[in-house]
Amino acid sequence: MVLYFVGLGLADEKDITVRGLEAVRKCSRVYLEAYTSILLVPKEQLEAFYGRNIIVADRDMVETAADDILADADHQDVAFLVVGDPFGATTHTDLQLRAHALGIHTKVIHNASIMNAVGCCGLQLYRFGEAVSIVFFTDDWRPDSFYDRILANRQQGLHTLCLLDIKVKEPSLESLARGKPVFQPPRYMTVNLACEQLLEIEERRQQHAYGPDTLCVGLSRVGADSQQMQAGPMQDLVHAELGNPLHSLVIVGRMHPIEEEMLASLTSKILPNAVAS
Amino acid sequence: MVLYFVGLGLADEKDITVRGLEAVRKCSRVYLEAYTSILLVPKEQLEAFYGRNIIVADRDMVETAADDILADADHQDVAFLVVGDPFGATTHTDLQLRAHALGIHTKVIHNASIMNAVGCCGLQLYRFGEAVSIVFFTDDWRPDSFYDRILANRQQGLHTLCLLDIKVKEPSLESLARGKPVFQPPRYMTVNLACEQLLEIEERRQQHAYGPDTLCVGLSRVGADSQQMQAGPMQDLVHAELGNPLHSLVIVGRMHPIEEEMLASLTSKILPNAVAS
Repeated sequence: MVLYFVGLGLADEKDITVRGLEAVRKCSRVYLEAYTSILLVPKEQLEAFYGRNIIVADRDMVETAADDILADADHQDVAFLVVGDPFGATTHTDLQLRAHALGIHTKVIHNASIMNAVGCCGLQLYRFGEAVSIVFFTDDWRPDSFYDRILANRQQGLHTLCLLDIKVKEPSLESLARGKPVFQPPRYMTVNLACEQLLEIEERRQQHAYGPDTLCVGLSRVGADSQQMQAGPMQDLVHAELGNPLHSLVIVGRMHPIEEEMLASLTSKILPNAVAS
Repeated sequence: MVLYFVGLGLADEKDITVRGLEAVRKCSRVYLEAYTSILLVPKEQLEAFYGRNIIVADRDMVETAADDILADADHQDVAFLVVGDPFGATTHTDLQLRAHALGIHTKVIHNASIMNAVGCCGLQLYRFGEAVSIVFFTDDWRPDSFYDRILANRQQGLHTLCLLDIKVKEPSLESLARGKPVFQPPRYMTVNLACEQLLEIEERRQQHAYGPDTLCVGLSRVGADSQQMQAGPMQDLVHAELGNPLHSLVIVGRMHPIEEEMLASLTSKILPNAVAS
């Protein structure tokens, strides 16, 4: 039997592929990875459409209770659903290696992820350099290790996709100190905050990887009907109005004229998917 | 009404998303872009499953007869199907811009493409630098402009995805000289030929972007049940047996230990998708 890794795509229950849907419908257990990304609809909507109960797998479960996920997968089909494509996060590689070690067959059903769907803003995918992840600053932890990667991309004229942090089911520090975790509400980094943090880092590092005037594209809910995109100088995107999560940001490199033409149609206003994606 | 750009994914008629399938089924005209990539099944199989006749659009048609594709799209739905994700090739951006200029609404339905599905080999997507396209050498045209991009990626320890040339509906030079184009059979570059050409370029350029011993991963038919992957030194992949098209190649950069672990399970043998993807 098979452990399926099924990509769900970006927006809702209908972004699954026909191949993926057929696989899910024949599985006896279905898990949903829900800590590196989210869909825009609740679990119940997926369950109704897929015709299967879904067990939400948080980080803890995938990292420490992988054996539960893999239990019996040698004689019944199990599905592990991942928002986007299954190969966005290292953890799934772990799970796959573990399955192989146990002699369980695995099969991957691919889908769109932000790594390729970002092409919808008109910038050419092959002109993107290394992607970076921007995490929430805290009072005493303001990481900027990705700055050098942005710098390297910019020096080569490449675009940089910035994946923005999400915090799901994070225990508060106070509650951990008291020994009984209380979970904070989920938080999703906005394009606004990402630009703010980036500008703070540039002020500290001063190596001109980018600046307040650097052209960026903010994207929200890519692939959904409510998708929005806004292009402008980084300092302007601090005040962009891109609505609900998820947000992503592109720091633009050197552009081909046709990329300029696409972006120009976005610069001055927020355009919904139906018009401009 | 709407002009839909629908990504078909990588392998066959069932890789379309449910959202995509619903869109196609309500369109009055359906075009299939068939010159930058191909699915592994004939058009008739798509037509039977989608329940629509499909007009194959070659490069010529998309570039010179875009108005036919767009005709009436302001009062009926039209679908433009693209293997992989709609934003792999510049040409579709052209078509989208043209639609906007005519006031036709467009909508994009994303899907997996080799740009993100390549993660199935266990290398982390965010560790890929700029992608390159490798074209067929001819006797007097042996282009190597991508060499500098591979070099830049390698200097930063990044992996390089090499997209391999496909030639569909190319007229032979002799027939063009005679003024009456006769089309050659389609050709798809193999991992073998790509490695051969790359080694020839390195011998010419001598800047040590890579060498015969550089670790590479050859992939074929990514996303299909018959998918194969083989890792090994570039000179060994000249003799890899990866079967039918489409092939893709990764030149490996510096690896994280977990990437090494994934690749190690591939190095010695060709593994079908059911076991190792």
